[in-house]
Amino acid sequence: MIDLRAKYGEWALVAGAPAGLGAAFAESAAKRGLDVVLSARRENLLADRASELESRYGVRTRTVPVDLTAETAAQRLLDTTEDLDLGVVIYNAAAEPDGLFLDTEVEALRANLAVNCWTPTLLSQGLGRRFRDRGRGALVLVSSMGAQQGIARFAAYGAAKAYELILAEGLWDEWREHGVDALAYVVGATASANFRGAAPGVDGDGAMAQILAPAAPADVADRLLDRMHLGPRQYSHPEDEKRTLADATQSRAQLVTAMGRVTAGLARFQKPG
Amino acid sequence: MIDLRAKYGEWALVAGAPAGLGAAFAESAAKRGLDVVLSARRENLLADRASELESRYGVRTRTVPVDLTAETAAQRLLDTTEDLDLGVVIYNAAAEPDGLFLDTEVEALRANLAVNCWTPTLLSQGLGRRFRDRGRGALVLVSSMGAQQGIARFAAYGAAKAYELILAEGLWDEWREHGVDALAYVVGATASANFRGAAPGVDGDGAMAQILAPAAPADVADRLLDRMHLGPRQYSHPEDEKRTLADATQSRAQLVTAMGRVTAGLARFQKPG
Repeated sequence: MIDLRAKYGEWALVAGAPAGLGAAFAESAAKRGLDVVLSARRENLLADRASELESRYGVRTRTVPVDLTAETAAQRLLDTTEDLDLGVVIYNAAAEPDGLFLDTEVEALRANLAVNCWTPTLLSQGLGRRFRDRGRGALVLVSSMGAQQGIARFAAYGAAKAYELILAEGLWDEWREHGVDALAYVVGATASANFRGAAPGVDGDGAMAQILAPAAPADVADRLLDRMHLGPRQYSHPEDEKRTLADATQSRAQLVTAMGRVTAGLARFQKPG
Repeated sequence: MIDLRAKYGEWALVAGAPAGLGAAFAESAAKRGLDVVLSARRENLLADRASELESRYGVRTRTVPVDLTAETAAQRLLDTTEDLDLGVVIYNAAAEPDGLFLDTEVEALRANLAVNCWTPTLLSQGLGRRFRDRGRGALVLVSSMGAQQGIARFAAYGAAKAYELILAEGLWDEWREHGVDALAYVVGATASANFRGAAPGVDGDGAMAQILAPAAPADVADRLLDRMHLGPRQYSHPEDEKRTLADATQSRAQLVTAMGRVTAGLARFQKPG
């Protein structure tokens, strides 16, 4: 197992941390001996998670409440981590406008772009410069299986996740000469608290969940920490990577239609990854 | 050949029209008997192109000077076409931040997001509602081969083009029940005026151009007008589609690296499609 602290630095920043997959990333980082900066909007959830990590893993924590839709969000994350030996950054935030595109509020579309495109762009530039200057670091932009083709009812969400997917791949190529890792982490269906909680009558063991074969959040998080150096695009589950390869030979119309059918049954409670 | 005027409506709007590929889209639309709204920043170029189309094809034209980076751009395009039987919209604008991501000005990154993500999002929503209500219409978001994988020196540009690519695919699935077409048009290397003009010592017949096998802009435009109804993703050249299928079995690292090498020699004068 790679010593992440030795390879990248003492601290990991997880943006979008307090619940669901973000919490799993933070816990996985703490388990590997990294001190953890937790950042999201809800300060009380951040503090709870930080206490848990401190008591369970003996790591240091810092909480940075920030609204990732704000123009100032990236700068705030940069400023509040400037004094740290920050080595790993996992950008896991996601606004999720779901529903038909023509019925979506403009403010939801704007938040989607801010959280999934603009803030990670600014953060990537600021962190990239810092990582380049110190000759090490790892930036992960968490994307989604829903970014690999358009999907009805997640059109804008998938589009924004595609931005992160392709941005991270480009950064991987630009940064490796500096010894800095970047990657897109493509997450498929995950049985997060969110997933179970929001699905009336359907939990991680239910029929719909089996169709999706959702992965455990801890597995998704652990896998990322094992693969951060492998870039430029890694999948949260080997099956998702296999499916992507198989999908590549389908017509786009077949693929988009099939994904739209799957999410039609799920749109009420689960984004596609 | 499909009668586009009968199928979609009298007018076509080309955003990003006055030079290069945009001009070709406008001319191709006029050739097919569509009246044309030309829209871009430079009013004098718009007027020149409009006069040419009127005299050469006997179509009506309208010019709408607009800065597509502006927050108001989409609404302006919607307002200035509200009285028209607008049937076809080709969104071809592109800010092109090229160069290393860490050296790119924040304002160039912001313009890239505005032109390639936010304005087309708002425009798609406004047009989509209009098209849905009249039961016909075609929206094309022009994307790029550079959107299908990250590329060094075009990291942010490719990311924004990926947003358009995946957004259009999702819209295709949502809108077809209304009789409305949407598609992403993936453009590969094109021997536009831009391409020739900006490459000192290298023109459409030069060695570098041959490596790219650039398509003629008129062919790229004509092909789009023949394929607008076929969605959700169409390619400007059959070879590009073949290459995409072949690339899908490569590792992401191989693919990203290879594309980065190609554009390393081209970055000074040509975006990757």
